[in-house]
Amino acid sequence: MNTNSIFQVAQEAFLFYKNLSGKEKGAFLDKLADILESQRAEIVPLAVRESNLPEGRINGELGRTTGQIRLFANLVKEGSWVEATIDPALPDRSPLPRADIRRFLTPLGPVVVFGASNFPLAFSTAGGDSISALAAGCSLIYKAHPAHPETSRKVAACIQEALTASGLPAGLFTHVEGGIAEGQALVQHPLAKAVAFTGSHAGGMALFQLANQREEPIPVYAEMGSVNPIFCFPNKLAQETESLAKAFIASLTLGVGQFCTNPGLIFVPASQAKAFEALLIEELKGIAAAPMLHPGIAQAYYDSIQYLESREELRWIKVADPKHLLNGSAALAEIQVADWLKDKQFQKEVFGSFALMVVYQDVAELAEVAKQLHGQLTITVWAEAEELQSQLFLINLLEEKCGRLLFKGAPTGVEVGHAMQHGGPFPATTAPNSTSVGAYAIKRFARPIAFQDMPSGLLPDALQDHNPLGIWRQVNGIVTMK
Amino acid sequence: MNTNSIFQVAQEAFLFYKNLSGKEKGAFLDKLADILESQRAEIVPLAVRESNLPEGRINGELGRTTGQIRLFANLVKEGSWVEATIDPALPDRSPLPRADIRRFLTPLGPVVVFGASNFPLAFSTAGGDSISALAAGCSLIYKAHPAHPETSRKVAACIQEALTASGLPAGLFTHVEGGIAEGQALVQHPLAKAVAFTGSHAGGMALFQLANQREEPIPVYAEMGSVNPIFCFPNKLAQETESLAKAFIASLTLGVGQFCTNPGLIFVPASQAKAFEALLIEELKGIAAAPMLHPGIAQAYYDSIQYLESREELRWIKVADPKHLLNGSAALAEIQVADWLKDKQFQKEVFGSFALMVVYQDVAELAEVAKQLHGQLTITVWAEAEELQSQLFLINLLEEKCGRLLFKGAPTGVEVGHAMQHGGPFPATTAPNSTSVGAYAIKRFARPIAFQDMPSGLLPDALQDHNPLGIWRQVNGIVTMK
Repeated sequence: MNTNSIFQVAQEAFLFYKNLSGKEKGAFLDKLADILESQRAEIVPLAVRESNLPEGRINGELGRTTGQIRLFANLVKEGSWVEATIDPALPDRSPLPRADIRRFLTPLGPVVVFGASNFPLAFSTAGGDSISALAAGCSLIYKAHPAHPETSRKVAACIQEALTASGLPAGLFTHVEGGIAEGQALVQHPLAKAVAFTGSHAGGMALFQLANQREEPIPVYAEMGSVNPIFCFPNKLAQETESLAKAFIASLTLGVGQFCTNPGLIFVPASQAKAFEALLIEELKGIAAAPMLHPGIAQAYYDSIQYLESREELRWIKVADPKHLLNGSAALAEIQVADWLKDKQFQKEVFGSFALMVVYQDVAELAEVAKQLHGQLTITVWAEAEELQSQLFLINLLEEKCGRLLFKGAPTGVEVGHAMQHGGPFPATTAPNSTSVGAYAIKRFARPIAFQDMPSGLLPDALQDHNPLGIWRQVNGIVTMK
Repeated sequence: MNTNSIFQVAQEAFLFYKNLSGKEKGAFLDKLADILESQRAEIVPLAVRESNLPEGRINGELGRTTGQIRLFANLVKEGSWVEATIDPALPDRSPLPRADIRRFLTPLGPVVVFGASNFPLAFSTAGGDSISALAAGCSLIYKAHPAHPETSRKVAACIQEALTASGLPAGLFTHVEGGIAEGQALVQHPLAKAVAFTGSHAGGMALFQLANQREEPIPVYAEMGSVNPIFCFPNKLAQETESLAKAFIASLTLGVGQFCTNPGLIFVPASQAKAFEALLIEELKGIAAAPMLHPGIAQAYYDSIQYLESREELRWIKVADPKHLLNGSAALAEIQVADWLKDKQFQKEVFGSFALMVVYQDVAELAEVAKQLHGQLTITVWAEAEELQSQLFLINLLEEKCGRLLFKGAPTGVEVGHAMQHGGPFPATTAPNSTSVGAYAIKRFARPIAFQDMPSGLLPDALQDHNPLGIWRQVNGIVTMK
């Protein structure tokens, strides 16, 4: 199908699908989760082969994918996510009567989702972006990531199977393969209403600019990664040196460092830098080089390392092993905070198991660090509660720079729940007011509409007087289930 | 102050103000409303003189302005708007424990608001955009509209008085005067986090592109008007010809047509076009030409009319009186639907009391009209309930093209309430997922942040276990006030 035909069927399918109940949409999603689980034995080996990720990880990722699907299925079956808000008519109000006004969220239309190479299942064909768009009531044009074409085709077939089994039009989901030109054509089509993307800064920004130059600009939800700094405070680090070293290296090297929330920057007090460094070296000994997702990513990793090796401000704690085919080898370097502050290059993400350890003299220096920090998906603060008492200003500054602020554990392992925020100030994402993980991700694909004095026979169930869906609504400004 | 100093004090003020309670923010807003009301006798004459609008309208607009301020004051004093969402830790969950994750909305930072010429009070210095930004917890750099400088200075002084009386830093609100260059400098400053604008398509798009070309792109909430079509169905029009003619002309000519929701397009069945036209001519006889907001707007109105007079597809029902200084004279022309469909020029907004009456032969033609229609703030359908039974597909198509869909009355007179949606698909606005009127307008100036395992001493009140604010929250996905 050419792009125009793809969007024509997607638009038709959308106009049918958007009016189905949340229960029907949820049943379709549940069916899809069932089908994916039933075909685990076929999907997992494909994804392992195409991503170079271990079977255990891919098995877990399939569980995460169906878990996400069921989360959104439950969300739309329950139904309160549409923010139904009703201001009933006040015919006797003086000086002017008030009309009856009812608002809720309505799906955007056909949307374009780009798959991510680092999550061949959970952020790809039936991943978080795709499912939150379908849950919202949009139709979907999915641009497969070229790194895992067979996995993508297989999952796409599962989606079509679920559509057929649910009596839904095939045009609700179209699987598109190709390169940059094919992706651009999708973003430029007049019927496209939004774009979701997870990947490189360059890729995300190219789509963002393209979408803004359309005759009708459309939102681009691009998640472009970040360096996810960890701030170690002196007392905390002194008391838990060993476990923090372990936690840091485990998070840094998980999945060969190929996570958006992989910590690429760690701030350590000078008084403990030597001791901490020794432990990190020890931990890294247990980490073997492992295959990366595809040759392009491995090449980019080694190119970045090579550039950093040319910078005399860095002292190398562990150099990367020489490049060997696809293998990514962990690397770690140290820099003084004064040098780090001088050049924003040291904030650039190196996708893979590389981190920069920034040595600071005094906690007071961290405010300047916070001010100069780019926007991040996550920031982690490792500190004793007492150490933070006098650091409220720093915490405030750090809040301005991230979407999620952690005080324990490591930033990798993003929980898929109701309260998760996976997004953050630019350049982490192009849309800091949205999340690509968790229940709120659905809101990216809907917009508010208000009906004024709509005949009750036309009102959607969510806005009917007697609340037939039994959802939480705001009536006259008061939250109620009545 | 130069731009840099303005933003430095705005950033400092923001970091102080954002942590104040909703009660403190609300008290400041209430104080501001009190001050504005107490200075009504000084404000109203200034605004009348600078806008050419009648005193009755400006008096009403001041009431609307303080009404909006109190709506937002109440919203932040109540506090539930922050969408507090808590997923408590599940330490015993298998295979992995769940961390404690708590999410809410946090203000963006310093934001830039541009005043609108057509609402010297309600969409200007202390208008809806300014107040929703301050209510959210942002600091504000306000670019005054050059059409009403004295009104703006006076209201700015009231805001400073309210800040002083509330013990808040002066840097929370900075009043900036100047032209395009001054406005652009504000949008380009690195500390600016969002822009709100109400005005022309060209002005809004220039700011939108400027903001997207920044090193850090920021959202632009530009409300750029629309033609707000009215669709008359045959039975309804037959039964209520006279009252609908009255309602249409009243809405068209209200405030010399200088409203964003002014209806500039009306679709009328051919069988009744003649009769309806006669009534419209009759109604227009009672409408005298009246002064427009400023000479630039009057000039643009007559330029648009002149262009349309050159189009042979139009038959003029009432021509505009010859231009006389500032006066805007209502005008009305007729076009056949087939001609209208051929050229998108006929969808262009003429800011002022001009409307195009589009004559259709059959209701079936309206689906094509809906498909070709640009995005609108409002669409109005005047139809008997029975006439709509078979028009669900058309209603669906119209929903795709507007932010508010009306079935009675006229689109002007935008209610400021909880359920209002004032925004719509492009080109009505650059951000259809937001509203510039009503309680939800506050959400434009906040973004989500999640705290993971934050020590309870640091948690904001909205996210404390025992819910000290008594707000509605989502805990484990369930809406609760506990």
